Amino acid sequence: MIVEMRKGVTAEEIDAVKQRAKSLGLGVQLNLGTDKVVIAILGGNTGQLSTDIFAVLPGVESVSRIMKPYKLASREFRSQDSIVSIGGVEVGGKKIVVMAGPCAVENEEQLVEAAKVVKEAGASILRGGAYKPRTSPFAFQGLQKVGLELLAKVRDQFKVPVITEVVDTHDVQLVSKYADILQVGARNMQNFTLLTEIGMKGCPVVLKRGLSATVAEWLTAADYLLAEGNHQVILCERGIRTFETTARFSLDITSIPVIKKSSHLPVVVDPSHAAGHFALVPAIARAAIAAGADGLLIEVHPNPKEALVDGLQSLSPSDFTRLMKELRQIAESVGRTL
Amino acid sequence: MIVEMRKGVTAEEIDAVKQRAKSLGLGVQLNLGTDKVVIAILGGNTGQLSTDIFAVLPGVESVSRIMKPYKLASREFRSQDSIVSIGGVEVGGKKIVVMAGPCAVENEEQLVEAAKVVKEAGASILRGGAYKPRTSPFAFQGLQKVGLELLAKVRDQFKVPVITEVVDTHDVQLVSKYADILQVGARNMQNFTLLTEIGMKGCPVVLKRGLSATVAEWLTAADYLLAEGNHQVILCERGIRTFETTARFSLDITSIPVIKKSSHLPVVVDPSHAAGHFALVPAIARAAIAAGADGLLIEVHPNPKEALVDGLQSLSPSDFTRLMKELRQIAESVGRTL
Amino acid sequence: MIVEMRKGVTAEEIDAVKQRAKSLGLGVQLNLGTDKVVIAILGGNTGQLSTDIFAVLPGVESVSRIMKPYKLASREFRSQDSIVSIGGVEVGGKKIVVMAGPCAVENEEQLVEAAKVVKEAGASILRGGAYKPRTSPFAFQGLQKVGLELLAKVRDQFKVPVITEVVDTHDVQLVSKYADILQVGARNMQNFTLLTEIGMKGCPVVLKRGLSATVAEWLTAADYLLAEGNHQVILCERGIRTFETTARFSLDITSIPVIKKSSHLPVVVDPSHAAGHFALVPAIARAAIAAGADGLLIEVHPNPKEALVDGLQSLSPSDFTRLMKELRQIAESVGRTL
Amino acid sequence: MIVEMRKGVTAEEIDAVKQRAKSLGLGVQLNLGTDKVVIAILGGNTGQLSTDIFAVLPGVESVSRIMKPYKLASREFRSQDSIVSIGGVEVGGKKIVVMAGPCAVENEEQLVEAAKVVKEAGASILRGGAYKPRTSPFAFQGLQKVGLELLAKVRDQFKVPVITEVVDTHDVQLVSKYADILQVGARNMQNFTLLTEIGMKGCPVVLKRGLSATVAEWLTAADYLLAEGNHQVILCERGIRTFETTARFSLDITSIPVIKKSSHLPVVVDPSHAAGHFALVPAIARAAIAAGADGLLIEVHPNPKEALVDGLQSLSPSDFTRLMKELRQIAESVGRTL
Repeated sequence: MIVEMRKGVTAEEIDAVKQRAKSLGLGVQLNLGTDKVVIAILGGNTGQLSTDIFAVLPGVESVSRIMKPYKLASREFRSQDSIVSIGGVEVGGKKIVVMAGPCAVENEEQLVEAAKVVKEAGASILRGGAYKPRTSPFAFQGLQKVGLELLAKVRDQFKVPVITEVVDTHDVQLVSKYADILQVGARNMQNFTLLTEIGMKGCPVVLKRGLSATVAEWLTAADYLLAEGNHQVILCERGIRTFETTARFSLDITSIPVIKKSSHLPVVVDPSHAAGHFALVPAIARAAIAAGADGLLIEVHPNPKEALVDGLQSLSPSDFTRLMKELRQIAESVGRTL
Repeated sequence: MIVEMRKGVTAEEIDAVKQRAKSLGLGVQLNLGTDKVVIAILGGNTGQLSTDIFAVLPGVESVSRIMKPYKLASREFRSQDSIVSIGGVEVGGKKIVVMAGPCAVENEEQLVEAAKVVKEAGASILRGGAYKPRTSPFAFQGLQKVGLELLAKVRDQFKVPVITEVVDTHDVQLVSKYADILQVGARNMQNFTLLTEIGMKGCPVVLKRGLSATVAEWLTAADYLLAEGNHQVILCERGIRTFETTARFSLDITSIPVIKKSSHLPVVVDPSHAAGHFALVPAIARAAIAAGADGLLIEVHPNPKEALVDGLQSLSPSDFTRLMKELRQIAESVGRTL
Repeated sequence: MIVEMRKGVTAEEIDAVKQRAKSLGLGVQLNLGTDKVVIAILGGNTGQLSTDIFAVLPGVESVSRIMKPYKLASREFRSQDSIVSIGGVEVGGKKIVVMAGPCAVENEEQLVEAAKVVKEAGASILRGGAYKPRTSPFAFQGLQKVGLELLAKVRDQFKVPVITEVVDTHDVQLVSKYADILQVGARNMQNFTLLTEIGMKGCPVVLKRGLSATVAEWLTAADYLLAEGNHQVILCERGIRTFETTARFSLDITSIPVIKKSSHLPVVVDPSHAAGHFALVPAIARAAIAAGADGLLIEVHPNPKEALVDGLQSLSPSDFTRLMKELRQIAESVGRTL
Repeated sequence: MIVEMRKGVTAEEIDAVKQRAKSLGLGVQLNLGTDKVVIAILGGNTGQLSTDIFAVLPGVESVSRIMKPYKLASREFRSQDSIVSIGGVEVGGKKIVVMAGPCAVENEEQLVEAAKVVKEAGASILRGGAYKPRTSPFAFQGLQKVGLELLAKVRDQFKVPVITEVVDTHDVQLVSKYADILQVGARNMQNFTLLTEIGMKGCPVVLKRGLSATVAEWLTAADYLLAEGNHQVILCERGIRTFETTARFSLDITSIPVIKKSSHLPVVVDPSHAAGHFALVPAIARAAIAAGADGLLIEVHPNPKEALVDGLQSLSPSDFTRLMKELRQIAESVGRTL
């Protein structure tokens, strides 16, 4: 249930609504907008309660139900766009944010080289995987803690925030010590204990869409993060599984306007994992910006042919530099910067 | 098999290759490029023949096999982009071509109004359905012959080529008398007798992708048109069927760069049928141009709320005019015009 | 709208309902059950009409709306199971009907051999393709008229009804002269002009499910046949297109109980096209009978390794004979015969 | 790589192969068959090694590569069917094993009642969820530890093994203390840290197929369990996500024969989650046994209408008892018992 408070509402009136909810065993989340306070009343059985319970309280303007499965991620709860701030970089504002770097951190030389390239070309955030969830147990699983240390070192050297994936609740504490943004991978989108753990941690997080998740399920997964009070949530479209096999996944370009309509959360696109082939990355990246995405997550490797993981989908430094120029043009044509 | 002839090949040498093929019961298609002649040798069992059969003939430079299921639609057969000309309008060149108009022709007033709006806003071709393939036999099936006559009348009045769908082999003759471009709908993409009939007719045709067709199947369906000597073929991506339900179909944006890599045929995008909702159309349309599409097929209705068919996905005149301005910006940012 | 008439209704009362419908420009279909007459009132805009228009007429017991897109194929229109009779063979009754034979008719010897094998093993109907809709125009397209003649000859010799595919409205007249059952292939499920033509013809028809058609769309396509007064309609599940690639299509076993619940039409299963590989056929065939299917459509070739089309998915005579024994056991375990 | 040892191989010879592998940084898994020893050599880059490295060692009969992504789950590693033993109940043998009970443990009365019903009807294992991974954070999440205690209590009372889901690495220790079989849910199929943890624990585990996982990915996920030396692995098909919406998921019946061909692991089917509706469960359950499944996982609730979770897909006691009789018939018709 969504309780919209009157303009000029007092702290006592807000508190009364919260107390009423708690007395009914319900949770509460506040959206303190610049000119309006909205309170979400949360629980498994709010559907059975009368809205009058809250409508009669002083300071309440209106009470309505959110018919969608997701509540906190919805525009009904928060009508303005959310902006996520990471060390001075804002995701969800006018500027398109590009996060680029290698799929897996391999060694210091590779990461330094990648950081140099992507920063020069205009990327704002460095990506690199330390923990790699691999389909087979016999494949390279990432440098793990050593990879995190390298990321932190290169971040300090280049003054660029870093994003890396976390794959287990055990590692949230450790990874968040080194990284500026945690990434939840597609296969973990509905790993609810992991989401809850990251939600409690409160750090910026990129939530990738599950490869067969509907947009509604994806936003409902975001509610797991938001429900713990973590509002630093960025969504990432990375393609869905369909029958088509010319690309690794089918990037669902329509999800961008759908999310912009239904949610206040910023959304970025990962063309590299969707495509599975570097030659398809530029077209998808351009399309994403044209469709309204707030940023991109792109794989760039100093030497794609020697990459330990996903070399085929990584851009070379020169391809990336060229793409950034194209993207800048597209960004401007839709009234944004890059 | 693809037989590339030497520069300066003579008509006799070309003829000898054709004769050799015929003597083996095989078909032949020529691509007379500006500086090279390519001959496709076609048949069900060319895989069992030795390439030497043709390699030894005079004037032959090289013989190779096309490993893909599609042959004539492939870049191997024709490396330059094909351009389709319709009464002065070129699809596949620098200029992005917009085909717009109502889903179904309803009456003269509606069609005239639509033609005025879309032409003023910059569309080059008028679309309108006379034969409507409807899921249920009890739904409005289109004005049929009366619709065709209205289309022809409005075309002459506004000097704008028209495109309309043909749904049965019986109607090809009639529809091609009235329309400048025939459209093969998604549900007929593998109606091979219809394709063969249109192929023999030789008129410009837009081949929509089947809602569960792979890109390879789509291009192989185009081969049915090309095999009859009809080279006026335009592909149209209109979304594929997936598990996601927020839009009617999932527009496969990646198919654009895939086709540009694998085929010489121009490709346009239909954001209206993919979206199923007017609010999603502009973002998809912008993305299509950014990804490299050669044009768009957009539903515009003078009064969407009163449309007999698909009103929800039709743009109003003012929405369409606004979108055209946005598209012009995107087109310029990728080095094209609109 | 569904108008249920009172027990003992007179011909005049029925006629009055029909006249009322016609005066409103609506279509009518009668279901003359043993103890009840049901009249379907059909048209694009029955949703806007009041049910009172018919409820007030004499002899009318009740008037209700069918909320599903399909009307005549629904259990609401006809609550008892429909049985389709083909030269003494009944599909939809207690006996499971097996239709077996080669994918394509190749020559007389092959067809005679196949007919002998499948009849001896207990199949009731011989299948064989004369017109083959092939993905590529350069593949073998079937023997066409010659194939039809062979089918008719072998039918007379073995006293077994034959089923064959029809791919174009032009051919309906010809094919129905030779075959006992027409088959509409998956790619033509929504070829509405073809359905209408076969509907008018009135002969038994097997309607295959489109490879990305929902059950609702499939039943609505059946309405095109039923609306022309052809009630000899058999549905055929043959797998849907999904991301899984170990089989050619994913047989949707759940569609069997779904159809039994929602429709009165008999449904058979084609395990051969679904599997794409002979080794998977027996398990799917057994599952289909266990799930409640009324029959099977199985590819059997005297010598699968030399088949011109789809050899890999054809059973050898000995495999088919063994499978029939297994199926007989399953049929008995669900209270049916084979 | 698969190293097959000669008949009568000595322990020293086996050890030499293991040592050779370790010296190259590779892992090793043994399959000690009754008349043959097979050694799997495991690692990310075995593809680059020559098979001769092992072929020259004494006692080695042959060395081959497994071209599939899964190794330990493949028939190449182990040709005989694996049988998993749980407190006297064998899964993968002649007897079909039914695991039944409520979706979620709600209270002792409900669980006792369910246990009584399912045991009397012939189920061998009691299922019940204590940890419920729910799409929304505001839905009932299960009784958790209290639920586990109830399960253990009822197990002791009815002398029936219990299966319950584990959703996080943190809980593996606790859940395995109470349950006889751990269940990994569809959304966790590629939660690799969870799989590794359970693999190390060594207890029986049911691995559900991810809702968009290919069969190959599913078997490769099983390799995560097997690689830790846990051979008590049962697969569970529970439907995949497709465009069809009449059932919650599309049960992939073909996966049963595919797995029987490619893997030695037993496979069971969950018709309840696939269907999402109790009326569809019996047909799917019958089909599963007919297709060759080794067991079923069925939701049964003493009073489905009052279930806290998934009541619509739960069978009532009388429906379950009736279904078990049908299944017994099917089991016999395919040469098995139940």
